[in-house]
Amino acid sequence: MIYFNSDYMAGAHPEVMQRLLDTNFEHTVGYGCDQYSERAVELIREACDAPKAQVFFLVGGTQTNATVIDGLLARHEGVLAPESAHINVHEAGAIEATGHKVLTLPHCEGKVRTDEVENYINDFYRDETFLHMVAPGMLYISFPTEYGTIYTLGELEALSRVCRKAQIPLYIDGARLGYGLAATECDVTFKDIARLADVFYIGGTKMGALMGEAVVVTNGTLLKNMMPLMKQHGALLAKGRLLGLQFDTLFTNDLYMRIGRYAVELAITLKEEFTARGYESVVDSPTNQQFFRLPNDLVDRLSCHVGFELWGPKGETSSVVRFVTSWSTTKNDLDKLISLV
Amino acid sequence: MIYFNSDYMAGAHPEVMQRLLDTNFEHTVGYGCDQYSERAVELIREACDAPKAQVFFLVGGTQTNATVIDGLLARHEGVLAPESAHINVHEAGAIEATGHKVLTLPHCEGKVRTDEVENYINDFYRDETFLHMVAPGMLYISFPTEYGTIYTLGELEALSRVCRKAQIPLYIDGARLGYGLAATECDVTFKDIARLADVFYIGGTKMGALMGEAVVVTNGTLLKNMMPLMKQHGALLAKGRLLGLQFDTLFTNDLYMRIGRYAVELAITLKEEFTARGYESVVDSPTNQQFFRLPNDLVDRLSCHVGFELWGPKGETSSVVRFVTSWSTTKNDLDKLISLV
Amino acid sequence: MIYFNSDYMAGAHPEVMQRLLDTNFEHTVGYGCDQYSERAVELIREACDAPKAQVFFLVGGTQTNATVIDGLLARHEGVLAPESAHINVHEAGAIEATGHKVLTLPHCEGKVRTDEVENYINDFYRDETFLHMVAPGMLYISFPTEYGTIYTLGELEALSRVCRKAQIPLYIDGARLGYGLAATECDVTFKDIARLADVFYIGGTKMGALMGEAVVVTNGTLLKNMMPLMKQHGALLAKGRLLGLQFDTLFTNDLYMRIGRYAVELAITLKEEFTARGYESVVDSPTNQQFFRLPNDLVDRLSCHVGFELWGPKGETSSVVRFVTSWSTTKNDLDKLISLV
Amino acid sequence: MIYFNSDYMAGAHPEVMQRLLDTNFEHTVGYGCDQYSERAVELIREACDAPKAQVFFLVGGTQTNATVIDGLLARHEGVLAPESAHINVHEAGAIEATGHKVLTLPHCEGKVRTDEVENYINDFYRDETFLHMVAPGMLYISFPTEYGTIYTLGELEALSRVCRKAQIPLYIDGARLGYGLAATECDVTFKDIARLADVFYIGGTKMGALMGEAVVVTNGTLLKNMMPLMKQHGALLAKGRLLGLQFDTLFTNDLYMRIGRYAVELAITLKEEFTARGYESVVDSPTNQQFFRLPNDLVDRLSCHVGFELWGPKGETSSVVRFVTSWSTTKNDLDKLISLV
Repeated sequence: MIYFNSDYMAGAHPEVMQRLLDTNFEHTVGYGCDQYSERAVELIREACDAPKAQVFFLVGGTQTNATVIDGLLARHEGVLAPESAHINVHEAGAIEATGHKVLTLPHCEGKVRTDEVENYINDFYRDETFLHMVAPGMLYISFPTEYGTIYTLGELEALSRVCRKAQIPLYIDGARLGYGLAATECDVTFKDIARLADVFYIGGTKMGALMGEAVVVTNGTLLKNMMPLMKQHGALLAKGRLLGLQFDTLFTNDLYMRIGRYAVELAITLKEEFTARGYESVVDSPTNQQFFRLPNDLVDRLSCHVGFELWGPKGETSSVVRFVTSWSTTKNDLDKLISLV
Repeated sequence: MIYFNSDYMAGAHPEVMQRLLDTNFEHTVGYGCDQYSERAVELIREACDAPKAQVFFLVGGTQTNATVIDGLLARHEGVLAPESAHINVHEAGAIEATGHKVLTLPHCEGKVRTDEVENYINDFYRDETFLHMVAPGMLYISFPTEYGTIYTLGELEALSRVCRKAQIPLYIDGARLGYGLAATECDVTFKDIARLADVFYIGGTKMGALMGEAVVVTNGTLLKNMMPLMKQHGALLAKGRLLGLQFDTLFTNDLYMRIGRYAVELAITLKEEFTARGYESVVDSPTNQQFFRLPNDLVDRLSCHVGFELWGPKGETSSVVRFVTSWSTTKNDLDKLISLV
Repeated sequence: MIYFNSDYMAGAHPEVMQRLLDTNFEHTVGYGCDQYSERAVELIREACDAPKAQVFFLVGGTQTNATVIDGLLARHEGVLAPESAHINVHEAGAIEATGHKVLTLPHCEGKVRTDEVENYINDFYRDETFLHMVAPGMLYISFPTEYGTIYTLGELEALSRVCRKAQIPLYIDGARLGYGLAATECDVTFKDIARLADVFYIGGTKMGALMGEAVVVTNGTLLKNMMPLMKQHGALLAKGRLLGLQFDTLFTNDLYMRIGRYAVELAITLKEEFTARGYESVVDSPTNQQFFRLPNDLVDRLSCHVGFELWGPKGETSSVVRFVTSWSTTKNDLDKLISLV
Repeated sequence: MIYFNSDYMAGAHPEVMQRLLDTNFEHTVGYGCDQYSERAVELIREACDAPKAQVFFLVGGTQTNATVIDGLLARHEGVLAPESAHINVHEAGAIEATGHKVLTLPHCEGKVRTDEVENYINDFYRDETFLHMVAPGMLYISFPTEYGTIYTLGELEALSRVCRKAQIPLYIDGARLGYGLAATECDVTFKDIARLADVFYIGGTKMGALMGEAVVVTNGTLLKNMMPLMKQHGALLAKGRLLGLQFDTLFTNDLYMRIGRYAVELAITLKEEFTARGYESVVDSPTNQQFFRLPNDLVDRLSCHVGFELWGPKGETSSVVRFVTSWSTTKNDLDKLISLV
């Protein structure tokens, strides 16, 4: 069996694992006040060219989104997000559990359009009854999106401009950030993300860590009480050094981007081989998630040898499926998959 | 420097670490549906003699308490707890953040008395205005307590009886459960805990795991929708197998109790050596936390070589300090400490 | 100036006001335990043919919806509702503030279709990732809807059947219930509502009371701790007798339905006169809210003499406007309005 | 039967009732944007010598406390309050339901001491683990307290100074404000309250209104989005003019203070007569609530003719009882009561 189901199926990248092993018997203070966490903060600030950014290490994505959004919004505000957003669909209502509405916008392959955001905000304040409605208090986008697509630098700049004009923070969910930044088409860098977003997170769980997400706050007026907020959200790990150490490793010797480039390269080869065989790629994704429409008999045959996900319900004669690569996908795995189609 | 500050300062017990290493490249499904988690569930059920218990793996203690308590209480209910309870003092309001009041009871060295619980409940329903007050909806205790003390079997049975009479669940926070069960004086077993509590958790973070807590639900009518609740609370780890695997290891070859006994033995030696030298042990703790009143000059001198915590504010001439042992404390560490006093 | 803006612009129906005056100096116990509240409960049970129903008096609509929905849902559940629902659009996020997501369904003039509800529930449980999503825990509809439309008895029976099959409660927001039940086309009665819904509320604020809404719980397994829940939601009026007394009056001598029929009759005359003059009625509403597309010059001219609401943004040459009648609309008001078009 | 149970047992003061009657058929816009509400705002600003204060009208006390406290606190903060505070004891967890902990301080007859507040805050920030604890984010006191006692001007000034030094708002619950300000011993005025508190509310429900509380925000940096917050809390009355009109009346011709003085005068006579007969006044209350220890046979005998409340459980031979006067207490009622003791 070979696995293309998702990018969180194996443990940690060997370099990360080795560091955990090397430091296992060291004693450090808890809750992220250790030297490894401190160094990871510095490395991330450097990568982002944001020397004053606050950086925090949390455990998982849903937890990170709930903590950040709860910290950014006033009680009467909601979070604008594309309808396909992870926070709207697959977080079991974690955002609403903090008391806030997700205000949905149409999406195109997971991306939201600047004018949709702008119009929503303008229409809202033009509505005479707006004080009876949930105010748009921030914008959430993901990079890459749940469809593997990425925003161009121009698009991000436009979204950032609209948010700053409306004085609401732009928050970027970067659960797979490295797989986005590593895409050949990508004209966005860590520094751009840090410059254009007010808050974002650098995903670790899907990028080679056992677990862990690094929240970066570049807008100095926001999230000034993050530590008790993290504690309250159950997001403050006792052995915080485990998270710091992993990000320290990921941001040493370019490991984070090496992982990104490796997985994306495999994914693009996969896409080329599938399309060369006549299978339709249904989303124009330049990252580690690839979506194809396959005939059902092929879907059934593949299922015996390959793990992957159906994307939506099974169709009459063909279905859309998703293949995901990661640092743990081997070239061998890919060759086997290709040999089967 | 040697460290007695707490039991979450090192990584994982070597046997746990080895298993993580051995399985690092395996691909498994996420969210705790993997074989390691399934085996860990079975091992825990066996240890508890509770073949029908539900078992769930969460990441940290505050998160676990918030998730369980939120799941057990109706909207108008609060949780009874000793005033010294971790949920009341050191969880940054995580319980209140779920909408519930912590209803405090007097405590003696961290323990609550059965008659205090009983009287609280009786007085509550006798009060004519009780419908305007927060109803006691469950009882929270910790085993061992924040003071290292443990309940006797008789005390647990009495608390359980009072809760069942009042039809409210008894929940035991077992962040350090193994260090309690391993105490020489302890007449309580896993099976007793499982029989007397409705829900409890077996702490992993402080007992040899990198992180992780195992919630055991023995009352079949409770917490029937734990998975979405965990997700909502940011407590559902994508790579759930990491938690399952660690508990699988901890419950294989008696590792969990071996760790408990090892740390407790060191702690008792520590206590004997301190009291032999005339220092007052201020809490009668039979577990891995020991508390002494030491003259301030000794406190200052020790601080240069040993990590430990002040328990409360520094006194005029003497202060109370806490020493904690764990699986990662070596006999060498203990010898060094003793040689310094 | 004459007013057709809404049905909450005047005080109370004279019969209600008289009772408040008559009893003003009486002393009664608080929080709805008085004799007037008790009699109102009995009268409502009779009207609903539901002798065992629980009946509670709250102050306003948003408050009532938040309290009931918070009481009906488990933590991991959300409330299904048409996208146009008041709880989704015009309650400032009051439902989300209780921690629950509003799960929206398409609507047709404010009404939801049975098959949409059924499909949503079926698709939800067929989705492999459903444990990561918000479970549909109840259905919210309004009668009449925000568009003045009403469900037929057949439609309500079908919705009720779907909900019972799925074992989720059906909750009906009856802020304007009397204006719906009084419609000529309406084949639904109080008794039907009580039989088909699990919980509903009988609106007082828009139906002749100063303020007040009566929640009726016909499903005996639900909302067993309503009083502390009301208190917690700030919905328990100290002088509860004010609410009881008003509903006592509204349900004496058929006042509630007299008010309904009176306002609906005026509204239908209004509609006939407008359509007779060639103006398009844009919603097929048989109740006290009427919607027309009017040329902008008429809209402007009317605005000088008549209060009414634009329904959505002003158009290029014509706009949709809403006229609302109530117990406080006089025939004189209506004649004046008609003379102006 | 005569009634001294509480100050919310009758309807509205006749002057208030008359105004409701006089304006009953007027049509006004909703949600407090009407002329009566606007005039009430101006009258309250004048009374408080606070021309820039924001003033909002809500329905009841628990609702007001929950809305204000939710609006003032950041997510990680709690509200300091005397242990006897209404928000801590008798609001069914409404504060915790908004996600915030009530941090309790010792009290003396309902009052908190300045040094207790100061020490709590200092000790909190001196505690090394304070980031794991709930930060004191505001101070709640009531004036008069639940025991009928009042703070002196000096005490209020000291509390205000401590709060400003700590940069946390001081919030005063004035459910019975008029009965406090009218006390002969009282050296505090509306203007002092407005100057020393950041936010406070002027109680209407217990002071002659059918219902209603007026929140006054004198600190211009706070509660900038009160209207959607009120809506979210179910505290925005559709017929907002009912509240505005009542406060307009209460603040016209000094009615509010006339009511206060009238009820306090009766209460003081009551106290004098009881103490003259040798009964012990157990709280030194100068306001409309009076507390006595009475022999049980007197308690029993009185119960047949007089409504009053036991204060705490019934004693062996004597019990503490509370008598409350209000605008609706007549001199006749008082004479009858006195004739019975």
